[in-house]
Amino acid sequence: MNKGFLLVVSGPSGVGKGTVLHDLMNTQHNLVYSVSATTRGKREGEIDGISYFFIDHDKFEKMIENDEFLEYARVHNNYYGTPKEFVERKINEGKIVILEIDVQGAMNIKKSTDDGVFVFIAPPSLAELRNRIEKRGTETLEDINIRMNNAIGELKCINEYDYLVVNDHLNSAINSVNEIINAEKHRVFRSDYVYKEEDDD
Amino acid sequence: MNKGFLLVVSGPSGVGKGTVLHDLMNTQHNLVYSVSATTRGKREGEIDGISYFFIDHDKFEKMIENDEFLEYARVHNNYYGTPKEFVERKINEGKIVILEIDVQGAMNIKKSTDDGVFVFIAPPSLAELRNRIEKRGTETLEDINIRMNNAIGELKCINEYDYLVVNDHLNSAINSVNEIINAEKHRVFRSDYVYKEEDDD
Repeated sequence: MNKGFLLVVSGPSGVGKGTVLHDLMNTQHNLVYSVSATTRGKREGEIDGISYFFIDHDKFEKMIENDEFLEYARVHNNYYGTPKEFVERKINEGKIVILEIDVQGAMNIKKSTDDGVFVFIAPPSLAELRNRIEKRGTETLEDINIRMNNAIGELKCINEYDYLVVNDHLNSAINSVNEIINAEKHRVFRSDYVYKEEDDD
Repeated sequence: MNKGFLLVVSGPSGVGKGTVLHDLMNTQHNLVYSVSATTRGKREGEIDGISYFFIDHDKFEKMIENDEFLEYARVHNNYYGTPKEFVERKINEGKIVILEIDVQGAMNIKKSTDDGVFVFIAPPSLAELRNRIEKRGTETLEDINIRMNNAIGELKCINEYDYLVVNDHLNSAINSVNEIINAEKHRVFRSDYVYKEEDDD
């Protein structure tokens, strides 16, 4: 069995990352979402080990000390992080572990692993991104402007990624990420191919 | 328009490289075969600039001096080589230039370019490779043994390649090489994506 890999996916809020990834989860075998650890309390309906690994503050900080996270961040008063153990175990089982994360998190992961595949999903233009966010109708003008500023900051980091997929048409973007996953499965360094000598008989 | 790239394809004789590549040429846009230069005489039906660039001995050696080949080799009394100019021109036109070449040639190309995509096509097993060569019914037992020895030598170099495709089922191998090409088109460093700032109006 070939080894799997970590697929890190970033892109501005509103670009359609979630939709692309949900579709892939439904159609590709061998994909799993990375499960984060967090110190925030469990909400109704959340399941430990599936929604998150819920752990307490002390344990989280001990895990930081022991270098057990691919990346972590403190948001308000809570920690969120990607436990190495989960990712590595799944990769060894041949799984492709999907991690949807912002650019800063992705760059931290890049520092702590040399075997990740980094995909950036970009909008065809900033105007179109604003369009999509406005269409949702859930944000105030101020929120939208903040998102657009963040988007510009993220787009400046595209060069840090391996692959760029422009989400112009959803199906074509899904297909492109799918092809990237399938191509990466054929990387020589992940292969367990051994040519079998023939039996001399 | 994104830049193209050089797709170097190797694999043991009899593995089905030609069949895979012919199919891709018929179904993928933007592929061209690399055209080699040679000092051997033009045969009936061959066209200069399409079958080969037919050039004389002196010119070939001058081109070697001027570092105008990605790789070249002398076979019996004739030179064969891959002219850089053709490959670079096609890449700048956005084409994917396909070069089917033995492992030694591929390794020489690897030294002279840092933007090639190297694909190795391998048989499911040596026994199956022997099967395929025997089925052709065109080779003597001695020829077959020489091919099998060469195959083993080539398979030892798989680690020098980027991607490995096992040609177990032809359609699945074609599909895999196709996905590798499409994924490589999304490489960030080949992209001309520029996010357009919106007009403030």
